[in-house]
Amino acid sequence: MPVDRKDTRWNGWGWTKAHNPVEGREAAWAWIANALGVAELPLTPAMKLEDVKLRPSRLSTPAREALVAGVGGDAVLESAFERAAHARGKSYHDLLHLRAGKLDDAPDAVVYPSSADETVRILQWAEEFKIAVIPFAGGSSVVGGVTGSAGAFGASIALDLTEMNKLISVDAESMTATAEAGIYGVDLEAALGAQGFKLGHHPQSFEFSTLGGWIAARGAGQQSNGYGRAEKWFAGGEVATSKGVWRLPALPASAAGPDLRALVAGSEGAFGVITQATFRIHALPAAQDYAAFLFPDFASGANAIRQVVQAEIPIASMRLSDADETYFFQAFGKVGQEPTWKDGLQARFLSLMGLGEKPCALIMGLEGNTAKVAFARKAARSIIRVNRGVSVGRGPAQRWYQGRFHGPYLRDPLMDRGVGIDTLETATTWSNVENLRDTVRTAIDKAIRASAPTNGAQGVVMAHISHSYPDGASLYFTFLFPRDVANDIAQWRTIKTAASEAIVRAGGTISHHHGVGEDHVGWLEAEKGAIGMGLLRAVKRELDPAGVLNPGKLVP
Amino acid sequence: MPVDRKDTRWNGWGWTKAHNPVEGREAAWAWIANALGVAELPLTPAMKLEDVKLRPSRLSTPAREALVAGVGGDAVLESAFERAAHARGKSYHDLLHLRAGKLDDAPDAVVYPSSADETVRILQWAEEFKIAVIPFAGGSSVVGGVTGSAGAFGASIALDLTEMNKLISVDAESMTATAEAGIYGVDLEAALGAQGFKLGHHPQSFEFSTLGGWIAARGAGQQSNGYGRAEKWFAGGEVATSKGVWRLPALPASAAGPDLRALVAGSEGAFGVITQATFRIHALPAAQDYAAFLFPDFASGANAIRQVVQAEIPIASMRLSDADETYFFQAFGKVGQEPTWKDGLQARFLSLMGLGEKPCALIMGLEGNTAKVAFARKAARSIIRVNRGVSVGRGPAQRWYQGRFHGPYLRDPLMDRGVGIDTLETATTWSNVENLRDTVRTAIDKAIRASAPTNGAQGVVMAHISHSYPDGASLYFTFLFPRDVANDIAQWRTIKTAASEAIVRAGGTISHHHGVGEDHVGWLEAEKGAIGMGLLRAVKRELDPAGVLNPGKLVP
Repeated sequence: MPVDRKDTRWNGWGWTKAHNPVEGREAAWAWIANALGVAELPLTPAMKLEDVKLRPSRLSTPAREALVAGVGGDAVLESAFERAAHARGKSYHDLLHLRAGKLDDAPDAVVYPSSADETVRILQWAEEFKIAVIPFAGGSSVVGGVTGSAGAFGASIALDLTEMNKLISVDAESMTATAEAGIYGVDLEAALGAQGFKLGHHPQSFEFSTLGGWIAARGAGQQSNGYGRAEKWFAGGEVATSKGVWRLPALPASAAGPDLRALVAGSEGAFGVITQATFRIHALPAAQDYAAFLFPDFASGANAIRQVVQAEIPIASMRLSDADETYFFQAFGKVGQEPTWKDGLQARFLSLMGLGEKPCALIMGLEGNTAKVAFARKAARSIIRVNRGVSVGRGPAQRWYQGRFHGPYLRDPLMDRGVGIDTLETATTWSNVENLRDTVRTAIDKAIRASAPTNGAQGVVMAHISHSYPDGASLYFTFLFPRDVANDIAQWRTIKTAASEAIVRAGGTISHHHGVGEDHVGWLEAEKGAIGMGLLRAVKRELDPAGVLNPGKLVP
Repeated sequence: MPVDRKDTRWNGWGWTKAHNPVEGREAAWAWIANALGVAELPLTPAMKLEDVKLRPSRLSTPAREALVAGVGGDAVLESAFERAAHARGKSYHDLLHLRAGKLDDAPDAVVYPSSADETVRILQWAEEFKIAVIPFAGGSSVVGGVTGSAGAFGASIALDLTEMNKLISVDAESMTATAEAGIYGVDLEAALGAQGFKLGHHPQSFEFSTLGGWIAARGAGQQSNGYGRAEKWFAGGEVATSKGVWRLPALPASAAGPDLRALVAGSEGAFGVITQATFRIHALPAAQDYAAFLFPDFASGANAIRQVVQAEIPIASMRLSDADETYFFQAFGKVGQEPTWKDGLQARFLSLMGLGEKPCALIMGLEGNTAKVAFARKAARSIIRVNRGVSVGRGPAQRWYQGRFHGPYLRDPLMDRGVGIDTLETATTWSNVENLRDTVRTAIDKAIRASAPTNGAQGVVMAHISHSYPDGASLYFTFLFPRDVANDIAQWRTIKTAASEAIVRAGGTISHHHGVGEDHVGWLEAEKGAIGMGLLRAVKRELDPAGVLNPGKLVP
């Protein structure tokens, strides 16, 4: 269904009326408390919006009048709900602020442009009145990418692109389509699907994120092996700047100097506002096959993925959970259920298959025409077998597939009960994957213990590979920890800092698909180098000379 | 064999001792004269180097002394041969200059650095003494990318990277390798092949071009479907600038802001000097299958390529010649031979198969492991059949494969006999391929007629698709024309301008894999836009504030 922000949580994930996955499962709380080494889980509810005191708008009367004259009064919203809903993104760090009613970074108004030209005029207005502009659409950033801070300016507006949400055209011969950048994932795929096509970009935020956001954050969908990361399917488009609309032609390939599309992908609203994109599409897949496997250890599973990808077998995705993640979600799902004969059988099966007690689960997705899927199935399963992977059928994979966008709904109820949960991700070459995983896990584990509110408290740290390439793979970490409620922001920063330093030390990228935002800015230079940072600043100066665009993010 | 520039032609293509493909084939000249609508082909030999008067070096004594003090006397060469061999690249336009002894653009010295740090020091020296630096390695540019002009500076040096030519390391697990940028294609593949790997980048210039040049020009090898264009396999590296060495980490994927590698690929020596690169490698293919097919028309062949690529069938290459190109090379090969019973059979075969009298030849290359090649063969051949393609066996394909680097050797003897021959290339989306081909062919044909030295003279204009993508394809034009010997540079410019304007008008890129150089600079803004050009200039200012690097190219 189309996203109306009114139906979504301003201070949490997704639909207001979404099912609470821990509802009524009291045994689950005891199990989590035990896993975290704490005696009990306190009630830590979020503040209600009506109890939050919002700072009055800092927009001057001349500025507001000029804005309204330019875009019309209907396009400028200043309600508490609008400002609160655009104050921050959806990171754990954001939620700590939102749930505590800390809305210092709420924008002074929310503006909904309806065209690229109108966006240009808004940016010119912002330069004239010295007002920060935070490009915003789904607002699902988990790296502080849309915090509404005014930076050095006197006021800020959120520029909400979600009214620019049309599929403009499909070129069925060239297999490309063009759409306005503010279209949500669900709407985009519905419009494409009606014509027999798909883009295939399905990040976990799919329901609440947009085409332009995917490009701006240089994101990757869960089936990135099959459909490509944002920078792979992004073929061209329009970017509004205060100098006018920058048009990038949708060429299949070119040697006409550097590919400037690369300065749009990952620009995070700091260089310009993506208003339209042309992207590469696929036929709706005739065949789809998701199946699950267990490996005796992480290295065997990782080797299977590596060999499949290096053999260029056309998979849609391969997702390998480490032993802790495999165990956690299975055990958590079973909490409160009486053991059955199935559990005994399962233990015997694991032992018979030589999988040990803590196997690693792999889910492989295949999509495409029938011949391609059949070829990939046979070739990939052969590699899986060689690496001691054992099929456990399609059931677990289908359950993962059906719930693949629901994970974030667990966070709000956990935060209501004194449990912190965060994720972060990185990538490295295959020869460094194990080192990076160990280094980061150890750092997170240590930082959680060091920053825990009570003695003996600990975290649960899990990892998986979800995106793979011939030369390397991503690593995605999920970790739970007991909140130090009185110091929760400092606690988060301690853990985040330890993890980020570990990533840099171990040679990973500071982000594989979440982006830089505010949260990773401090570690960007370690990756880009002083010369690289100088280039990013030069690009910023050229496209946003007044620096009004998304201050504090990417290139502060 | 390793390239020693002394064994290569300073004013022509390739090895000095290479076989002349037209040697002794007098009938061929008559056939060409007839094709070009001229009565005879004059003798137009090139000047010998000993007859050319080279301008004395413009390097001041303090500049030369500082240079020699920094890099050592052995690294600074000033002989006439070195300066002439570094005066220009290998375009038709370049050869017009070189063959006429017009060496105004010869650099004042040729410097061979041995490390990135030394290159940094040379760039700092150039800034201090206000001397232009032209990065040079294979020198095979066909777009004026290495012209040694000093621009606004008082002198110029060619910076020859070919002493930096070591394979540094191979990461067999991550399937990447790292090498110094000045390594020639043959040497690189030999070193990789000894360990069981290949890069697979084989442009027509393969024997005389280098790793760094391929990246700088954003090139594509003949098997780009299988092994990727330069920007696809370029994973990271080192770029020397006057500010120091810019190191780009070799990450498989990242969302840590824009991918700055995209500013290196296509930088054409105007932003910095690529001194080292990490790139993605492949296992030596267990299977290789090159086969030829004929189609009744170009559109049917193009449809077959499009459908194969859009179905993601893993081919190494598909190359479709239009009817004129198919006819020309076959007929030219047979000139002077008596017709045999085979020719009669061939005509009957074409007619029986419904191919008409002027079919279009397609060569499909498959490379990889046995299962992949078998899958691709079956899937691709089925699509070829549906599009009325008829197999003509592996013979013609193998002949093409064996001669795939020899084409340029035809140019020198043609130029010796008053025949001009040039190539240019572009790319567009599939739905625009036919329009682009028609527009450019018509423009070239018309310009050749208009600029011909005699009434009734005409050109031979041929085209092929050699690189394809899900969303589009390249178009490569080869054209022969009677030289207007007294005005040959103006004649070339007339034809080049007409073709470039046609490309822009029809929505193609000004270059698919040759680059921008000096020759395409005038049409770059039509593609990049004013904002895009501003960005390129901003990057140039940031990395090369004095503007000493490769003046006149890419961003003049």
